[in-house]
Amino acid sequence: MLGLMQSQQLLISTLIDFADRHHGEAEVVSRRVEGDIHRSNYKQVAARSRQVANGLDRWNLGFGDRVATLAWNGYRHLELYFGISGSGRVVHTLNPRLHPDQIAWIVNHAEDQVLCFDLSFLPIVQAVHSRCRTVKRYIALCDENRLPADSGIPGLISYEAWIGAESSRYEWPDFEENCASSLCYTSGTTGNPKGVLYSHRSTVLHAMAGAFPDSLNLSARDSILPVVPMFHVNAWGIPYGAAMTGAKLVFPGPAMDGKSIYELLESEKVNFAAGVPTVWQMLLSHMQNANLRFSTLKRTVIGGSACPPAMMVAFNDVYGVEVLHAWGMTEMSPLGTVCSLKNKHLMQNAEDQRTVRLTQGRSIYGVDMKIVDDNGQELPWDGLAFGDLLVKGPWVCSEYFREEGSARLVDGWFNTGDVATIDADGYMHITDRSKDVIKSGGEWISSIDVENIAMAHPAVAMAACIGIKHPKWDERPIIAVMKKQGADVTREALLAFYDGKSAKWQIPDDVVFVDAIPLGGTGKMQKSKLREMLQDYRLPNT
Amino acid sequence: MLGLMQSQQLLISTLIDFADRHHGEAEVVSRRVEGDIHRSNYKQVAARSRQVANGLDRWNLGFGDRVATLAWNGYRHLELYFGISGSGRVVHTLNPRLHPDQIAWIVNHAEDQVLCFDLSFLPIVQAVHSRCRTVKRYIALCDENRLPADSGIPGLISYEAWIGAESSRYEWPDFEENCASSLCYTSGTTGNPKGVLYSHRSTVLHAMAGAFPDSLNLSARDSILPVVPMFHVNAWGIPYGAAMTGAKLVFPGPAMDGKSIYELLESEKVNFAAGVPTVWQMLLSHMQNANLRFSTLKRTVIGGSACPPAMMVAFNDVYGVEVLHAWGMTEMSPLGTVCSLKNKHLMQNAEDQRTVRLTQGRSIYGVDMKIVDDNGQELPWDGLAFGDLLVKGPWVCSEYFREEGSARLVDGWFNTGDVATIDADGYMHITDRSKDVIKSGGEWISSIDVENIAMAHPAVAMAACIGIKHPKWDERPIIAVMKKQGADVTREALLAFYDGKSAKWQIPDDVVFVDAIPLGGTGKMQKSKLREMLQDYRLPNT
Repeated sequence: MLGLMQSQQLLISTLIDFADRHHGEAEVVSRRVEGDIHRSNYKQVAARSRQVANGLDRWNLGFGDRVATLAWNGYRHLELYFGISGSGRVVHTLNPRLHPDQIAWIVNHAEDQVLCFDLSFLPIVQAVHSRCRTVKRYIALCDENRLPADSGIPGLISYEAWIGAESSRYEWPDFEENCASSLCYTSGTTGNPKGVLYSHRSTVLHAMAGAFPDSLNLSARDSILPVVPMFHVNAWGIPYGAAMTGAKLVFPGPAMDGKSIYELLESEKVNFAAGVPTVWQMLLSHMQNANLRFSTLKRTVIGGSACPPAMMVAFNDVYGVEVLHAWGMTEMSPLGTVCSLKNKHLMQNAEDQRTVRLTQGRSIYGVDMKIVDDNGQELPWDGLAFGDLLVKGPWVCSEYFREEGSARLVDGWFNTGDVATIDADGYMHITDRSKDVIKSGGEWISSIDVENIAMAHPAVAMAACIGIKHPKWDERPIIAVMKKQGADVTREALLAFYDGKSAKWQIPDDVVFVDAIPLGGTGKMQKSKLREMLQDYRLPNT
Repeated sequence: MLGLMQSQQLLISTLIDFADRHHGEAEVVSRRVEGDIHRSNYKQVAARSRQVANGLDRWNLGFGDRVATLAWNGYRHLELYFGISGSGRVVHTLNPRLHPDQIAWIVNHAEDQVLCFDLSFLPIVQAVHSRCRTVKRYIALCDENRLPADSGIPGLISYEAWIGAESSRYEWPDFEENCASSLCYTSGTTGNPKGVLYSHRSTVLHAMAGAFPDSLNLSARDSILPVVPMFHVNAWGIPYGAAMTGAKLVFPGPAMDGKSIYELLESEKVNFAAGVPTVWQMLLSHMQNANLRFSTLKRTVIGGSACPPAMMVAFNDVYGVEVLHAWGMTEMSPLGTVCSLKNKHLMQNAEDQRTVRLTQGRSIYGVDMKIVDDNGQELPWDGLAFGDLLVKGPWVCSEYFREEGSARLVDGWFNTGDVATIDADGYMHITDRSKDVIKSGGEWISSIDVENIAMAHPAVAMAACIGIKHPKWDERPIIAVMKKQGADVTREALLAFYDGKSAKWQIPDDVVFVDAIPLGGTGKMQKSKLREMLQDYRLPNT
């Protein structure tokens, strides 16, 4: 027996329609590539997104066709989000930080039909357009008079001229909520990038759960600055959640430096900001140097990588800003956990609360998670046992775009590739990447734990722990160490340094001194390269 | 093209499963019919709701079969919510305040198979059971040893004995989210009660939107006391929203008096409570008499009927408790609007904010609304124009149970039966019930506005405005007045009292003095009876 409630599909167009009707005057403020501050509101964004939809209709773009963006956070990008998805096409956000070869590969794999880009990224488009086989239209996100005369890109038009020719009257089409809405590629460290294809349903449900008080806590009283880019998992869903709640949006454009961000936070009375630790580090440095305070900022969500404890202390204790850890991944839309406290923590002192806050947090409704051992058996939630972290939920991907059966699903659970503990209150703590964890005698050793001890030694500049094949124990850890300039430490002294800091069987079997540890483009250690470097290495006594 | 996200149905079982896994220790505290305070948590509620499911399975109750409850707010009622709906049956909450004849009629109309009741309601069950043709099982929500020996109800068993015989291991079935989950009858002032049949999807989406910061603002940091009964539109969805967010739940049971509620608020450190104005009036009276303060209460949502301004002042200014107006109806699950402020109001003074707060509030995402004139044309959002209030959304009913084509849908919009204004910021203000508004010369006159002026006259105890047929103007308002004992006022003096307080054409054409104005069971004026009383009345000069 079916319920007797109205049938209404969860479509992205309902978000901008809602913002238009109920929060039309709420502001959307953007620092533009042009350098100035641009002021808009949801009524205007809605009208212009309908112009985008009319423009795509005029070109007879098919339902589900991909329209790519290569753009900073800004109002035009927001209009594209709603205009493209709302009219039934798929908005494909390209990451400008990738190598042009990768961008070209992704555009061809996605079969993008249209490419919209900020003028900052003109050089990328110039480098790739001749290889983009499916792209028929190029749109520069600027006024007609800023269009470069000799871009070399055939048929390049300006966004303003394009939508300026279209009506803002448009009826959003009604269709099934499981239809694709947006596409985002992960830049895996190995193999080709993989596309995650979100649906309208997954996007709307994710935005709803993201708005919860224990998630991003979005309301019409907020002024929100998403530093996290709209080309990176849809800026954690904030553009959708803001429209859904009528929050003011403040977009930083290309200016991520501490001074620019600080000025925007202050001038737009921002109370909530979201981003990765590196951007916050630039902001805090600027503030320390210039001896500045926040007037309105109260809350920040930090994700992408773990927040260094010192940064959390600075935000909390020095600046009075609450820091929320969040964890997720492109395959999860991305929100999986947020580190909000529970009722039971409210009586704790700041230090105990911080211990909780330094975990990746607990599941938001919709996402379930579990940790399993090598045999897929669920492990206890005791904060000690660690195993492969699996997740499921309506905004978790089932497979990658055009890679049938590709996603790492185990009985409907997605394998995150992370290794984690979960405590009795459901707080999850990432201990390692599963490809880096060392499996020794049936037990797991966290490579990160081994590295953290070595890095605490005064002579060590950087340390990377990897597993080496062992005839009896399967794998044993060794630690590759880059010494600080002018400092010295012996193999024996460093191994002795582990005494009392680690279980005996978790102490590495050997130390290998290297001149440098290979790093990737984002500064992360590339252990796969390190393993290649050490492929001829053999453990002592084996 | 479909998105590639996991398919997971929005089922009520996912809520209790989530609370079980991620908030197992969060408390569920109940004042019981027995008088004592009972302490449980989500882990126990989840386990016992699975026992309920096993019990229903053992009786071979069919998918979609109705199981009725006649119960106060408490942990057993909560277990029934999840056990009945989660296992695919429909929980049908009966309102014990209705007349037994109505209850019997409703039970038969719904074809309830099982009836679970608190012992407080034993007299009602004794009065109706012989007429309840479809009910095969009666369950008293108590321990075995409290079961009355000679209830006269055939086969009566105790809840604890029933579920005590069942395993707490149970796998919630997976089914389509549009399946029916729960049933609640409205007690219309005319005609038979009408059943609203909620679905799993509507219930979960409503709970999600209800948890938003601008709605009920639910989080795992909260301790929530829902005074609004679970037999009244599922206590506004709070039981579902609390499980979804891990909030502590505090149930008052049958003790709604000011002293009992106050003690529970204090002892359980409640920070958020929800209820109707009458209960809050009892609470505030108790506090004023005993000179008490709240230690933890910070927020209250008031719905059901408009919050008197004096009560809002008392909560805000005297006790430091934020009052949120909410509006909805059984047909809307019930939440439609909540009166949260916007960013633009934060700079206003308390008096201006209160003007906003006294409206019924603005739409939460998911609910759209509009006001229309007699021809169905949408009216402007200027805070002045008033018209029939229509709503739509995924938790708004499409038709009534077993009354095909019965709901008041106009092009997919549900006619609420209210007349309202909406201002430019989307704040809605109910001005009248549509059956009470007076249509004069193509313009509408709010009967409530006319009454409020008369009631401000020192000699008037109660006043009711109704429309009387008029040959030229279609209808004209008259005011029926019950004078205060010992006070007097003439027709002419009262009509003169309107001068300067009302537009001339909105001043009633006549005053009719009556001994009493007919009231219904809940204290509301019954204008239909008044119209009957005055059926032979004719306007002067017609």
